[in-house]
Amino acid sequence: MIGVDWGTSSLRAYRMTEAGQIIARASVPSGILQVAAGDFPNVLRNIVGDWLADGETKIILSGMVGSRQGWVEAPYLPCPADPAAIGAALTRIPFDGADVLLVPGLSDRDEAGTPEVMRGEETQIIGALDALGGSGLVCLPGSHSKWAHIQGGRIAGFRTYFSGEAFAALRDGTILGRMMDDAPHDVVAFTRGVTRSSDGGHLLHQLFGVRSLALFGELGAAQTASYLSGLLIGHEIHAALRSDSKVTVHLIGASALCGLYAEAIALCGGQSILIDEDAAARGLARIGQRGMLHERSDRLPAGSTRQPAG
Amino acid sequence: MIGVDWGTSSLRAYRMTEAGQIIARASVPSGILQVAAGDFPNVLRNIVGDWLADGETKIILSGMVGSRQGWVEAPYLPCPADPAAIGAALTRIPFDGADVLLVPGLSDRDEAGTPEVMRGEETQIIGALDALGGSGLVCLPGSHSKWAHIQGGRIAGFRTYFSGEAFAALRDGTILGRMMDDAPHDVVAFTRGVTRSSDGGHLLHQLFGVRSLALFGELGAAQTASYLSGLLIGHEIHAALRSDSKVTVHLIGASALCGLYAEAIALCGGQSILIDEDAAARGLARIGQRGMLHERSDRLPAGSTRQPAG
Repeated sequence: MIGVDWGTSSLRAYRMTEAGQIIARASVPSGILQVAAGDFPNVLRNIVGDWLADGETKIILSGMVGSRQGWVEAPYLPCPADPAAIGAALTRIPFDGADVLLVPGLSDRDEAGTPEVMRGEETQIIGALDALGGSGLVCLPGSHSKWAHIQGGRIAGFRTYFSGEAFAALRDGTILGRMMDDAPHDVVAFTRGVTRSSDGGHLLHQLFGVRSLALFGELGAAQTASYLSGLLIGHEIHAALRSDSKVTVHLIGASALCGLYAEAIALCGGQSILIDEDAAARGLARIGQRGMLHERSDRLPAGSTRQPAG
Repeated sequence: MIGVDWGTSSLRAYRMTEAGQIIARASVPSGILQVAAGDFPNVLRNIVGDWLADGETKIILSGMVGSRQGWVEAPYLPCPADPAAIGAALTRIPFDGADVLLVPGLSDRDEAGTPEVMRGEETQIIGALDALGGSGLVCLPGSHSKWAHIQGGRIAGFRTYFSGEAFAALRDGTILGRMMDDAPHDVVAFTRGVTRSSDGGHLLHQLFGVRSLALFGELGAAQTASYLSGLLIGHEIHAALRSDSKVTVHLIGASALCGLYAEAIALCGGQSILIDEDAAARGLARIGQRGMLHERSDRLPAGSTRQPAG
């Protein structure tokens, strides 16, 4: 089978055995924002055409390719959700030469009833379930960081933090950015930012402190970006862990960003484990197995016993 | 005497009696960002030249004109500070045909030792001291909102919140702004945003909710900006009031923005009083009186009794 993690800025394809072992992989910067409407089948065929010619017939897609701006919009599946439920909710996309199935995004509601959504992260989380032992806390850092609670092998619920996109907007669109030099990551400044987030003051107050520290010469232009990054990530971690800093956070994502989160979690008194970068592939395989099982059971003649989907 | 409140985006000049009664006023959009280096004397003369010709000889300036980007950089005076201390710390600027004196900005340190600064707001606060009866809490909403504690007629200390500039950056530089229509202020959406800020969740989480509510059709494109504004202002107010929502907040600033803050403070369980827009003029007069007293006492011959400056 073929699994494709197709996000906003890139596409990662995996050729796998049905058990999920990766045989081959391909990656291109053809994220959905780089693909013109109507061109999704061609982009997919360019990447996986050789594998199809070599006998593959099933393709599972996950990520923003299933959003309104993607190829086909797949509905959200509400939490709690497990691999069986996700596998039973795939959307079929017409495609010449293969069965193409699209993984649904997940939705949730926070304590106040505000909606939550993810697309793509659910597949990475499914791919980390074995490492988690069925329960735990998962963090997927990014523009919109996701923190998911896993209970009994299911994604029980999740919360999103706008930290990554807020960082970019504050850097690019405020006086804070005008005081920043382009500079490599500064561990000391990042640590200062994370530590500052523990002060108990509000983020909106502490953001002004980035300016005032620079104004008083207490934060250099080469340190400001790392300090701001630490401040925002620290706030996110405190909020996501609440008082429960004893829990182990399972980090999924690009190793550089996960490294920053691991550092910040430790500074906040917690601990973390980094999940390897093939979580998406494993999740696609696992959902794909369920989906095909479900497909086969769908095709049984009426009256025959239905195989359980989970 | 002449008082000039010279900020980043505008200049407001007042001709006053020494007791602070306004005789005439002028306002131009020549904020310091619109004035070329070296052109400050000309801009000032264009505005107050007639008053000088009519016999005025003293000009007091406050605001960002005393910043590094302004005419002359005036040092910050540390809190606590009262009108006498501020009046004793004026910076003289050479100017043909009048004594020009520049009000210092104020500095402070928050609980964590991070610096705080204001320029111009100290003069508005001094102009509100009588209305406050010598003690209370003052809020000056803006790009960088200031919350000052007044005790015994002195500015005891203050905290800054980055809410206004964060709002602009989030609106102009993130996916939240791409979902916003230009629309008039929406009271219902603003109220929803303020109410949301009381949920106890973190701002970084609630920012993502602006997107998810829109995605689920639970917040219209014409409501999104007002909701975001209410969310940020609500967070600022909760943080500034802490648990002490019983205190009366004295609001100083443009009436439209102060109106939003008054509404939000009420929604957060507090109460507010709006100080009139001539607070800056009264503050300039009061500081000017002290400053001239100080100037005169400076000129007394050595050995003579010094008049107390306060």
